[in-house]
Amino acid sequence: MTGIKRLVLDVLKPHQPSILELAKAIAALKHVNGVNLSLYEVDTQTENIKITVEGVNIDFDELQHVIEDMGAVIHSIDEVAAGIKLVEEVETLQDR
Amino acid sequence: MTGIKRLVLDVLKPHQPSILELAKAIAALKHVNGVNLSLYEVDTQTENIKITVEGVNIDFDELQHVIEDMGAVIHSIDEVAAGIKLVEEVETLQDR
Amino acid sequence: MTGIKRLVLDVLKPHQPSILELAKAIAALKHVNGVNLSLYEVDTQTENIKITVEGVNIDFDELQHVIEDMGAVIHSIDEVAAGIKLVEEVETLQDR
Amino acid sequence: MTGIKRLVLDVLKPHQPSILELAKAIAALKHVNGVNLSLYEVDTQTENIKITVEGVNIDFDELQHVIEDMGAVIHSIDEVAAGIKLVEEVETLQDR
Amino acid sequence: MTGIKRLVLDVLKPHQPSILELAKAIAALKHVNGVNLSLYEVDTQTENIKITVEGVNIDFDELQHVIEDMGAVIHSIDEVAAGIKLVEEVETLQDR
Amino acid sequence: MTGIKRLVLDVLKPHQPSILELAKAIAALKHVNGVNLSLYEVDTQTENIKITVEGVNIDFDELQHVIEDMGAVIHSIDEVAAGIKLVEEVETLQDR
Amino acid sequence: MTGIKRLVLDVLKPHQPSILELAKAIAALKHVNGVNLSLYEVDTQTENIKITVEGVNIDFDELQHVIEDMGAVIHSIDEVAAGIKLVEEVETLQDR
Repeated sequence: MTGIKRLVLDVLKPHQPSILELAKAIAALKHVNGVNLSLYEVDTQTENIKITVEGVNIDFDELQHVIEDMGAVIHSIDEVAAGIKLVEEVETLQDR
Repeated sequence: MTGIKRLVLDVLKPHQPSILELAKAIAALKHVNGVNLSLYEVDTQTENIKITVEGVNIDFDELQHVIEDMGAVIHSIDEVAAGIKLVEEVETLQDR
Repeated sequence: MTGIKRLVLDVLKPHQPSILELAKAIAALKHVNGVNLSLYEVDTQTENIKITVEGVNIDFDELQHVIEDMGAVIHSIDEVAAGIKLVEEVETLQDR
Repeated sequence: MTGIKRLVLDVLKPHQPSILELAKAIAALKHVNGVNLSLYEVDTQTENIKITVEGVNIDFDELQHVIEDMGAVIHSIDEVAAGIKLVEEVETLQDR
Repeated sequence: MTGIKRLVLDVLKPHQPSILELAKAIAALKHVNGVNLSLYEVDTQTENIKITVEGVNIDFDELQHVIEDMGAVIHSIDEVAAGIKLVEEVETLQDR
Repeated sequence: MTGIKRLVLDVLKPHQPSILELAKAIAALKHVNGVNLSLYEVDTQTENIKITVEGVNIDFDELQHVIEDMGAVIHSIDEVAAGIKLVEEVETLQDR
Repeated sequence: MTGIKRLVLDVLKPHQPSILELAKAIAALKHVNGVNLSLYEVDTQTENIKITVEGVNIDFDELQHVIEDMGAVIHSIDEVAAGIKLVEEVETLQDR
C-alpha cells in the first residue's frame, strides 16, 4: 500500500462547530486511524488550528469534504508522508 | 472506537475546592483513564490550570459538568485527539 | 483505582531536619512508591525544595502531616496526576 | 546490499501538481519504502519542499525522473545514507 | 525497602587524593551500586565536584565518612530519591 | 575485535562525482556497514561534506583511498570510536 | 566489581601519531570495552581531544601510560563512573 499515511494541515475555522465535533468527524473517516487538532490562534470570529491525521491510505478528498462541511478552509498542506513505512522528516546540516 | 482519547483544557478556577478534589472527580469519570492538572498562574481569588485528560471515549459534557460543578470555567480547548490511535501533534518546518 | 498517582509540591523548610530525614519519612508512607526531593533555593534559616511523590492512591492529608511535622510548609501544589494511568502534562501549541 | 537507503532533497516545484500527487508518485517507485514531503517556503508561483525518501536500494535517476515529470527541480542533495545499516549523521564537538 | 536510592552532592575537595580514589572508595560502600563524579570547577588548591550515588538503601553517614576521610567537604545535598521506586524530579509549568 | 567502529570526517570535494557516487563507493568497502554523507557548505567549484562511517574494523587507508580517488580531500578526522562496544562521546559539566 | 566503568579525559597531543593510532591503542587495553576520541581544538603543533573510555575495571595507570607513550598529556579527568552500575550524572535544580 503506497497511499498517504500522514497529513499535517493548517486550517481556518469558525468557532462553531467546535474542534471536538471536527475531531470526531475526521476520526470516523475510513482509513483514518487517529487525528490530533491543536489550536494555535484565536480571533473574534475564527480560529486557526493544526490538524495531524494518520491512517493507512488517507483519502484527501473525503478529508477536505468533512473539513469544508464544517465551514472550515484548508490554508495549506504542511507535510505529507506516503508509502509502506511512515518516514519522518530528517533534520540535516542545511537546517541548522 | 473513534471517540476522544485526549483533551487539553485551559481552566480558570477558585482556590477551593483544591486541584486535588478536581483531579479525583475527573479521574472517577467513566471512560477516563487518567488526568493531569498543572498550575500555571495564581491570583488572589483564582488560579489558572492546564488539564490533560486521557481515556477511550471521553464524554466532554460530563467532563465540563464536573469542572463547572467545582465553580471552574473552561477558557479554551487547546488540543483534542480522537480515533483508534492516539496521534500526537507533529512539528513541521512551518513551526520553526 | 482513581486516586492520586503523583503530586509535585513546592515546600519551605528549616535546614533541620535534613531533606534526607524528610525523604525517608515520606517514602515510608502507605501508598507511596517513591519520592524525590530537590533543593532549589537556600537562605540563612530556610530552604525551598520541590517534592515529587509517586504512588497508587496517595493520601494528601498524611503527606501534609509528615511534612508539617518536620516544621515545613507546603507553599503550593504544582501538579497532580490521578486515575488508572499516570498522565503527563502535554505541551501544546499554546505553550510555545 | 550497499545501495542508497535514504536521500534528503531540496526541491523547487510549481503549486500544481500538489505535494500529495508527488508523494504518491515517489512512494510508488520500486525500492522506496516511504517518503516525507515538508513545505518550507511558499511563493506566488512556486513552493520549496524538503523530500526525505527511505528505501533499500533507491534509484536516484528514477526518483529524479518522477520529480522532474511533475515540473519540479532538485536544488540540492542534502544528505545520503548508503550501506547495510542506515547510519545517522553524528553530532561532534566540531558542530557546537 | 524505603531507604535512599539516589543522592546528588556538591563537594569541595583538595586535588589529592584524585577523584579516581574517591570514586573507588564510594563504589566499595555497602548498598552503593554505582557512583559518578564530575568536575565542575578547579582552583589552585581545591576542586568542586558533583557526586551522584545510586544504591538500594544508601547509608549517608558512611558516605559522608568516606568523603571526609579524603579531606573533602559536602557543601550541599542537592537531590535525594527514596522509596521502592526511583522517582525523578518532574518539570512542571512552574519551572518554565 | 578492537578496531575502528566509527569515523567522522570533514571532507572537501569537487561537485562531481556527486555525493551519491561517493556514498556508494564507501558503502561497498569491506568492514563498512553504512555511511552517511551530509552537505554543509557549497561553493562554486567545491562543497564541504561531513562523512559518518560505521563498521566493525574500518580500514582508514582504504577509506582515504576511495575518497581521494574521487578528487576529494580529508580536512580532519573529527571523531573516532574503537573497541568491542561503540562508545559515544559523553557530555560533562566541563562542556556546559 | 567496584572498579572504574567510565572515564572522560581532556588530553593535549601532538598531531602525530593520529587519533586513529591512539584510539586503537586504548581499545586494545585489558578491561577496556570501547573508546571515543573527539577533536575539539586544533593548533599548529598540537590538538586538544576529549577521550571517553568505557570498560569493566579500567586501569588508569595503564591508560595514562598508553596516552603518554604517544607524546600526549592528560590535562584533567572530567568525569569518573565506578561501581556495578554505570551511573550517569543527574541534572538537578541547582544546575539550571
